[in-house]
Amino acid sequence: MRKNKKIILSEKEMPKQWYNIVADLPGTLNPPLGPDGKPIGPEMLAPVFPMNLIEQEVSTERWIDIPEKVMEMLSIWRPAPMVRAYALEEALGTPARIYYKNESVSPAGSHKPNTAVAQAYYNREFGIRKLTTETGAGQWGSALAFACSLLGMECKVFMVRVSFDQKPFRKMMMQTWGGTCIASPSNETQAGRDVLAKYPDTPGSLGIAISEAVEAAVTDETGQTRYSLGSVLNHVMLHQTIIGLEAKKQLEKAGEKLPDVLIGCAGGGSNFAGLSFPFIQDKIHGAEIDVIAVEPKSCPTLTQAPFAYDHGDIAKMTPLLAMNSLGHGFIPPPIHAGGLRYHGMSPLVSHAVKEGLVRPEAIHQLECYEAGLLFSRTEGIIPAPETTHAIASTIRQAKLAKEEGKEKVILFNFSGHGLMDLVGYEKFLNGELKDIKLATKDFEQFTAVLKNHPSPVV
Amino acid sequence: MRKNKKIILSEKEMPKQWYNIVADLPGTLNPPLGPDGKPIGPEMLAPVFPMNLIEQEVSTERWIDIPEKVMEMLSIWRPAPMVRAYALEEALGTPARIYYKNESVSPAGSHKPNTAVAQAYYNREFGIRKLTTETGAGQWGSALAFACSLLGMECKVFMVRVSFDQKPFRKMMMQTWGGTCIASPSNETQAGRDVLAKYPDTPGSLGIAISEAVEAAVTDETGQTRYSLGSVLNHVMLHQTIIGLEAKKQLEKAGEKLPDVLIGCAGGGSNFAGLSFPFIQDKIHGAEIDVIAVEPKSCPTLTQAPFAYDHGDIAKMTPLLAMNSLGHGFIPPPIHAGGLRYHGMSPLVSHAVKEGLVRPEAIHQLECYEAGLLFSRTEGIIPAPETTHAIASTIRQAKLAKEEGKEKVILFNFSGHGLMDLVGYEKFLNGELKDIKLATKDFEQFTAVLKNHPSPVV
Repeated sequence: MRKNKKIILSEKEMPKQWYNIVADLPGTLNPPLGPDGKPIGPEMLAPVFPMNLIEQEVSTERWIDIPEKVMEMLSIWRPAPMVRAYALEEALGTPARIYYKNESVSPAGSHKPNTAVAQAYYNREFGIRKLTTETGAGQWGSALAFACSLLGMECKVFMVRVSFDQKPFRKMMMQTWGGTCIASPSNETQAGRDVLAKYPDTPGSLGIAISEAVEAAVTDETGQTRYSLGSVLNHVMLHQTIIGLEAKKQLEKAGEKLPDVLIGCAGGGSNFAGLSFPFIQDKIHGAEIDVIAVEPKSCPTLTQAPFAYDHGDIAKMTPLLAMNSLGHGFIPPPIHAGGLRYHGMSPLVSHAVKEGLVRPEAIHQLECYEAGLLFSRTEGIIPAPETTHAIASTIRQAKLAKEEGKEKVILFNFSGHGLMDLVGYEKFLNGELKDIKLATKDFEQFTAVLKNHPSPVV
Repeated sequence: MRKNKKIILSEKEMPKQWYNIVADLPGTLNPPLGPDGKPIGPEMLAPVFPMNLIEQEVSTERWIDIPEKVMEMLSIWRPAPMVRAYALEEALGTPARIYYKNESVSPAGSHKPNTAVAQAYYNREFGIRKLTTETGAGQWGSALAFACSLLGMECKVFMVRVSFDQKPFRKMMMQTWGGTCIASPSNETQAGRDVLAKYPDTPGSLGIAISEAVEAAVTDETGQTRYSLGSVLNHVMLHQTIIGLEAKKQLEKAGEKLPDVLIGCAGGGSNFAGLSFPFIQDKIHGAEIDVIAVEPKSCPTLTQAPFAYDHGDIAKMTPLLAMNSLGHGFIPPPIHAGGLRYHGMSPLVSHAVKEGLVRPEAIHQLECYEAGLLFSRTEGIIPAPETTHAIASTIRQAKLAKEEGKEKVILFNFSGHGLMDLVGYEKFLNGELKDIKLATKDFEQFTAVLKNHPSPVV
């Protein structure tokens, strides 16, 4: 009989610390800047985040203990299985051994709850009773509603109007977990009212929703409300490293050394960082691993945008972050991988790319859906549209291994299932999707935005 | 630190045989009858099912080997975790220790793939290239499409028209797995055309869909098409026993003896039988276990219907089965737990109830949704509407244990997640649902139907 398909860990083998890559990254990290162009201090973030999370955001310690209560909540679905993709290998006829870390087993269906439970916990410890956030397609909003329900906290999610109307199931998930989900722009914030006065029929945007969620947090009179972000920031990447730390133990159990190729899709960067950062530590110390961050061709942040200081949101409410950015005014085309439609990128992931530790790759959506379909019909699990980008890249690498006749070990992050995103598959099967190519004017537009940055790094 | 939340098994610990309760059940089982009122022979089922499955259907052997290839497919998600519901216990303040077997981890989201992969395998071994089936809410249709995709078989699902229109996501799941899903009644079968000619605007029914699926299988000229059923029959119950066999090993790992109370919801009976039959073997040999089958008050098959011979479908295409039945003409009210809306019941489960081995219980849907909400907000996983019936009964038992001050062990089957059924939760939260009580005329109607049975057993 063949070896096990799944490589599992017991709860006792679950990592007890997160890995903070800041302690090991080469080069100098560029700090966030305030409106005055000077590095911001922790106190400037205090109205938005609790101090214990701000401390994590700026920490340079290599290992940070995971609190007992967070471990308990994570144990609802963790440790997550690592799976050998025997059937996919067979379909491709590749000598590569393909493994995937299955993050779709969480109650919300993706890796997002890894940081949601941690953020909710730290806020609760700090005396916070309510969290606000924004959500696009709904993956992050439902993860935070889930986490808040476990801790008896209130959760208010500003969901981009067009998604709110088109994806009612995500809203229902949040409500089932006791969260409140309202369409953005709303009449509940000044930012929302301003937009509605000007554009009463706007479909909304992530930028507007962020502005509303931050405003709702900082203007709350009880002082017991804060804002929560599902990607981009350092503490979010930190919480996600449990993915890669588990995967290392599992590869060892499978009798493998380090992977030759490591792949994750990247929107804001959190699932990619979660799997890759613990392995990049080895790469920094000499290991040869091809670490690939996959993004959509239609939102080519890492492959085509400059590394510069830019805002995380359209309304410029966030500090200036040093990152790859298509410009905070850039609106990505409406591809189905909503989680990858972001103009910016985690500063840590951007830095790792700049230092040559990560190799970015951009793939068009038709190739990704084709890959998602092959995976669904061989390995049996329907991937989220975001995840299909990692699968498409994995298939490229597996075919390359076949051409080269090499027994490579490929590990990718199966960041989420696609059960809430089946409309994209239907459109693909009906031939209604096409690859969206950016025109020169799109590039010119965001380049113009970046020219106005206060202190471009590159 | 508390004990582990999840009790997991390695793939090597996965049971290698199914348990056939027919070998141990007391009393005499009543055989299926043909249209002439005489027991049917295996050859009469040959146009509908492959002979290897018919042999399983009538087998009296206690243990039946699970084929290697089926084990491989099951290992995509099995062994399934058993979970200690610490947070639910705490919320209830009960001294009971509550465990649940989490069958929602399969790619289709429920226990249904346990038998889908086995049935697809045996058909494939017998040279069959295509399976037909019917589906109501879509849970079974998507499970069979999933199984067929793994084996490269065609799958055609006749989906009840009203669900086809209202639940497009289930259809999309089937299509993503390469299956064909068409609304029933359709123009593709004589049964469908007859209904459409008479009632062009009919919403369809499970009874019509069964007739279409059976007709499509038996009239296929290649001879390589058969029909597949997702519940009720003996071989389906057999395939599901892997649930209970795993649970036994897991309870032992958790340091528990046999459970005091064992609970599952029952529509056609397959998830209930899957968990309970291996424990009922112990009960037959003297163990004291309160085994509870939970059904909706609005479809009270086990609690209020007689045990008698009846057809499995409205069109009377199936043999007469000895079972509890509300009458094959009974149309259950439109509650959201679509999987529990069936007029009949597995003959084996019905027999176990008759012999006093199983205690049926009926619960109204509001109590079930309330239970599902509490579970979602404590244990974190949103249950399917069917599964909330098992949870509601579990909560009743946990409260009873509190009143009695007893440290009971309660084990229930978490048969599926509710991510594809969130509309029911939204309606519940909006106060739009009510308990549906059957009127006397409903009873009179099905009693009349049962009077016409050829050979009532009770």
